[in-house]
Amino acid sequence: MADKANRKEVPYKIILSEDEIPASWYNMRADMKNKPAPMLDPGTMEPVTEEALRHVFCDEAVRQELDNETRFIPIPEDIRNFYRMYRPAPLIHAEFLEKMLDTPAKIFYKFEGNNTSGSHKLNSAIPQAYFAKSQGLKGITTETGAGQWGTALSMACAFYKLDCRVFMVKCSYEQKPFRREIMRTYGAQVTPSPSDTTEVGRRILAEFPDSPGSLGCAVSEAVEAAVTREGYRYVLGSVLNQVLLHQSIIGLETKTALDKYGIKPDVIIGCAGGGSNLGGLIAPFAGEKLRGESDCRLVAVEPASCPSFTRGRFAYDFCDTGRICPLAKMYTLGSSFMPASTHAGGLRYHGMNPVLSQLYHDGLLEAVAATQNDVFRAATAFARVEGILPAPESSHAIKVAIDEALRCKRTGKAETIVFGLTGTGYFDMVAYGKFNDGTLSEEPLTEEALQKGFAAMPRQ
Amino acid sequence: MADKANRKEVPYKIILSEDEIPASWYNMRADMKNKPAPMLDPGTMEPVTEEALRHVFCDEAVRQELDNETRFIPIPEDIRNFYRMYRPAPLIHAEFLEKMLDTPAKIFYKFEGNNTSGSHKLNSAIPQAYFAKSQGLKGITTETGAGQWGTALSMACAFYKLDCRVFMVKCSYEQKPFRREIMRTYGAQVTPSPSDTTEVGRRILAEFPDSPGSLGCAVSEAVEAAVTREGYRYVLGSVLNQVLLHQSIIGLETKTALDKYGIKPDVIIGCAGGGSNLGGLIAPFAGEKLRGESDCRLVAVEPASCPSFTRGRFAYDFCDTGRICPLAKMYTLGSSFMPASTHAGGLRYHGMNPVLSQLYHDGLLEAVAATQNDVFRAATAFARVEGILPAPESSHAIKVAIDEALRCKRTGKAETIVFGLTGTGYFDMVAYGKFNDGTLSEEPLTEEALQKGFAAMPRQ
Repeated sequence: MADKANRKEVPYKIILSEDEIPASWYNMRADMKNKPAPMLDPGTMEPVTEEALRHVFCDEAVRQELDNETRFIPIPEDIRNFYRMYRPAPLIHAEFLEKMLDTPAKIFYKFEGNNTSGSHKLNSAIPQAYFAKSQGLKGITTETGAGQWGTALSMACAFYKLDCRVFMVKCSYEQKPFRREIMRTYGAQVTPSPSDTTEVGRRILAEFPDSPGSLGCAVSEAVEAAVTREGYRYVLGSVLNQVLLHQSIIGLETKTALDKYGIKPDVIIGCAGGGSNLGGLIAPFAGEKLRGESDCRLVAVEPASCPSFTRGRFAYDFCDTGRICPLAKMYTLGSSFMPASTHAGGLRYHGMNPVLSQLYHDGLLEAVAATQNDVFRAATAFARVEGILPAPESSHAIKVAIDEALRCKRTGKAETIVFGLTGTGYFDMVAYGKFNDGTLSEEPLTEEALQKGFAAMPRQ
Repeated sequence: MADKANRKEVPYKIILSEDEIPASWYNMRADMKNKPAPMLDPGTMEPVTEEALRHVFCDEAVRQELDNETRFIPIPEDIRNFYRMYRPAPLIHAEFLEKMLDTPAKIFYKFEGNNTSGSHKLNSAIPQAYFAKSQGLKGITTETGAGQWGTALSMACAFYKLDCRVFMVKCSYEQKPFRREIMRTYGAQVTPSPSDTTEVGRRILAEFPDSPGSLGCAVSEAVEAAVTREGYRYVLGSVLNQVLLHQSIIGLETKTALDKYGIKPDVIIGCAGGGSNLGGLIAPFAGEKLRGESDCRLVAVEPASCPSFTRGRFAYDFCDTGRICPLAKMYTLGSSFMPASTHAGGLRYHGMNPVLSQLYHDGLLEAVAATQNDVFRAATAFARVEGILPAPESSHAIKVAIDEALRCKRTGKAETIVFGLTGTGYFDMVAYGKFNDGTLSEEPLTEEALQKGFAAMPRQ
């Protein structure tokens, strides 16, 4: 609780100085007694080797991915210089939201949307591009759905003068031209997937000439484009342990800002798709829990349409629908699982980062699922008092932060709630429009759809 | 020049504390020997009275509009509280741009895009909504083209729980649904104009059922909706002197930030449409010039397609195409002037704020016109090194800042250049897309089009 915090002394926005940008990322795995299970090679079903991963990922990325021991990993100076362009991100005291809710709770949110990618994704795009550049590579490849990750990576590659090839799910490429044009403005080559530029793309097009594409197919094309091209590697914006490591900058800054005002959070809330934001936000706080120094609650919020924590299984599964990437032990709905077509709120990944999965399995992390009309209702209420138009993804956290604040109101407890506001919703106005029109529908997840996803999982 | 500034001590972003948000707006007019000419009533062609303006605008807005004497006008505490949600805006040292240009110049830019309206427009929307609320009004009306001003006003009205009715040019309403939905998310009622909700709208629809609308028509509808409704007034986001007053917060913060590091600017550059950003950015620096304390150059950048300073006349003209608003003495291309349909870079207003017009006339302000392909080229180069994707409007200032920096490179002078980055280009990706495709065309302004505009101006 914020016992020591004199509320009048806390500004509306706590903004650290550039000197206070963390000098190291924090690796939660070092403090975990139960380490995340190793990834398995899809060919041998044996733990994947560093050697094998190096064909696909940059060397430093592979090292970070497999490092379960080093607690703090220094952030290279060049990366910190780039971080200075949009960091430190503000920790905002949501006093107008508190007033609206008439709650004794203190609410803070860490806002990661003040950069052109519009989200926290840039925090990992920068180091991944930097490591590729440092290794002397010519370029990197990736896939993108709606385009948030692709935008972030394009920005990072433009800065480091690295070729960037983005395979964008074809229906998004056609229906969401704005993000595509942002990527092109940053010099990226954006290819609608499936495409005729890869073997796998041509195979799919031969069979389904009118395919609208899928993330799984785009992953396969991006990996192929990397491994068949001299001087290229593949990068990924979520799910991986290295991504959580980079994103720990969110939590480290949050903790520094809170510590400055003597504020101890009672509950920390983050939205969860693949886990990149949640894992970053909670990192130092989970570390305290792992070391027995704190009993702060940590809460993941996922969409009711894609509830890997709350309705998934903790098991080895494929990370991609194409089944060419290593398997990970994680909470998963099955790599063939697809959220209902009515789902507009993002966070569509079928699985969850292995570190977070282990924390959840060990009872250190809670999870709750939210329906999308509830999420957009919270988003709209928040926007009207706090000014920021939140991304639907981020709004999952807003929804549960409001629930927690209302619980405090009922119990009269002045708890301190911190949540992650991962980004802005400027490119999600089609979904907002449906909500404004009252036509944002909700298709409850059926037991049948769940079982179908589970049935396609590999034998354990 | 930045003689005293130890460059190493200047952070990448100079961010003031919330306590340093200015306590007063600065009114340039108080320091002008040649005051801007009074507005004229379109019926009588006599100077317009406070009484007459009160039927259309809020009382406090009218006072501020006509006040040529008070140097500092206190910012009410409620407004400063709202400003804290996104201000102080950062003054960014463009070190990556300097490096790219290999210039001895020091370049700084004041970034106003870190809020959901995406631009500086919110700085004036807040006080205008607040004054309406304080006067006990129920709501306010306005027009919007692309939607930047409408978005800002919707945000301010949501916060103050004020009804907000926006008449949006019909073709924008249909072609740019994103901004429309942002306004609706903030609770505004958005009506495509011409509409059947006003007398003037019905008249236009009767004559031109398929009219795509125009700003002039939307102004007329918004004014009618205000004056015919109990408890409503009309508000405007640019051109007016009160708007410049509110926007002076941009320049005041910029000056405080520069003073902190002992930096004296040699040239200050702002884009100019109606003049709201330029007038705000240069305000305290123009004040110094007016008082003979500085010889800093002040530069307006306007689109070559709508060059009111560089090719317009300094004369009394109508502020709106509907000719129902008062006349102002300003640099103008004629109220019937329309930029070529190929023009995509914003800043489409036919005239220029009267204060800025007077400063330009008196030689205190320079002006230069830029063609849009040059502007988008500068925008793209800037985005790739400085990260921020700029609005086309703002990019006019970037273009000329780069030109000035290259001049410094040729002359070897380490001048300090400051420019205003008014906002982000997230909703301008159609124009960026054309530029990326090499299909952004340019139609030079013909002498014929100019003369046609002048011919429709009132007799002086």
